[in-house]
Amino acid sequence: MTWEKYMKISLDLAKEALQAGEVPVGCIFIDKDDKIVATGCNTVNETKNATRHAEVNCVDKLVNDGLSNKFSELTVVVTVEPCIMCAAMLVKIGCSTIIYGCANDRFGGCGTVFECPGLLNCKIQKGILAEQAMDLLKLFYKGQNPNAPDSKVKKKIKKC
Amino acid sequence: MTWEKYMKISLDLAKEALQAGEVPVGCIFIDKDDKIVATGCNTVNETKNATRHAEVNCVDKLVNDGLSNKFSELTVVVTVEPCIMCAAMLVKIGCSTIIYGCANDRFGGCGTVFECPGLLNCKIQKGILAEQAMDLLKLFYKGQNPNAPDSKVKKKIKKC
Repeated sequence: MTWEKYMKISLDLAKEALQAGEVPVGCIFIDKDDKIVATGCNTVNETKNATRHAEVNCVDKLVNDGLSNKFSELTVVVTVEPCIMCAAMLVKIGCSTIIYGCANDRFGGCGTVFECPGLLNCKIQKGILAEQAMDLLKLFYKGQNPNAPDSKVKKKIKKC
Repeated sequence: MTWEKYMKISLDLAKEALQAGEVPVGCIFIDKDDKIVATGCNTVNETKNATRHAEVNCVDKLVNDGLSNKFSELTVVVTVEPCIMCAAMLVKIGCSTIIYGCANDRFGGCGTVFECPGLLNCKIQKGILAEQAMDLLKLFYKGQNPNAPDSKVKKKIKKC
């Protein structure tokens, strides 16, 4: 199975996050019938809650929809390697597969900084459209928005 | 400062969790003026959400009350060492101090299984009323409830 089709959906969610001034990470949860059962992106700034990562929002969406019985059959497709908090959370809900784009060099909990205990029971595939995920992060950390005017125009606006 | 007074409050919350059939862990958040700003216990079974640990419930309580500006000055008093997910979350919100009772041998994220990156910036004190916290966990894992009839009576009930 190719995961690119699904990762593109997560990337679109990450772009929405970027436009909203959030760290651009997008995530979808897929059940065993290949149905998307939850979508989410970072909402840390909007909620003023440092824990509202894309994966956390997806978990809460599923619970609020009364679908927590699906936890153990889930495939998680997320643009950036889950941080230690989220990786530990995904172990805790018992998801079966994690597909991610680029590595999370500072907080990655799927092996980059630390491999959360229990992840051995979980299939992991990394590097799916990684460059696109990383490009979005770079845009955010440079304070640039792909939909904003180019830098010259931005400077002009700044002067005003 | 002695933390026992506060830990007793967290232990009471853990007892409430036990009575509700939850893993008995209780937690309080205290601000810099020694005011308790959030209380919580595990609600995993009630919510059917494996991530609803005592600490997570306290974070959400604070956010819902519009008090996330207090995150960086918080002291967290919790009966059991935060798991990796919760320890990473507490690092993420930037709390200043973590006080816990007994160690978490399976999932402890404050050093027992893993020390989450960033905890070096956080004061940690462990072992406060640890035995009482552990006793509650033992009661839970033995399937016993301190308020239930003794084992002979329980067997009798079971036969009926």
